[in-house]
Amino acid sequence: MEVKQVIAVRTDLGMGRGKLAAQVGHACVMGAERVRLSRPEWYEGWQGLQMKVVVRVDGMDGIDDVRRRAADANLPWSQVADAGRTQLEPGTVTCISVGPAPSDLVDGVTGDLRLL
Amino acid sequence: MEVKQVIAVRTDLGMGRGKLAAQVGHACVMGAERVRLSRPEWYEGWQGLQMKVVVRVDGMDGIDDVRRRAADANLPWSQVADAGRTQLEPGTVTCISVGPAPSDLVDGVTGDLRLL
Repeated sequence: MEVKQVIAVRTDLGMGRGKLAAQVGHACVMGAERVRLSRPEWYEGWQGLQMKVVVRVDGMDGIDDVRRRAADANLPWSQVADAGRTQLEPGTVTCISVGPAPSDLVDGVTGDLRLL
Repeated sequence: MEVKQVIAVRTDLGMGRGKLAAQVGHACVMGAERVRLSRPEWYEGWQGLQMKVVVRVDGMDGIDDVRRRAADANLPWSQVADAGRTQLEPGTVTCISVGPAPSDLVDGVTGDLRLL
């Protein structure tokens, strides 16, 4: 069983690449920790390669859509709100992770999104 | 006690921003997991904000330098080698994380590096 984590990032915020990478890092850690505790068999299956794919959404509507679809599919998701120390207003949602979870299930939620 | 994780990324590989963000995500998860197991008090102190800072090195020499300095300071580090499925040759080292660990200790290793 292939297991992956997909992170959808907002492209409308004009984040620099370091900022963007740190936000994706938050989503990866939060999502992985959630799945380690709630679905240890998925977490275990994700070890080794720890496949991660970063995709794009063009605004908050896209984040909301991913979150709803993940919830409908009973997949664990983690949304990142920026602390607002640099570049963004506090509380700005920057990205959302889905999984790590079986790839076919994740693809049902994020499969139509383009790579960042 | 402020605790942070710093991730140093190679800028000489020409990674696209999605690729780069995924590599940083690997470093964040690997580093956090290592510290959760080896220094739970640091991991605990890092919860909440989960401060992450992404900095740059201009080649493998820079990665090696960070790794040696982290080891000399007894700080946990995690180096990411790419699986080579896209953009890079298999085994290419893309980035290295230091911590999460107390910020003053981490700054002793990475404090002279520029933000990405």
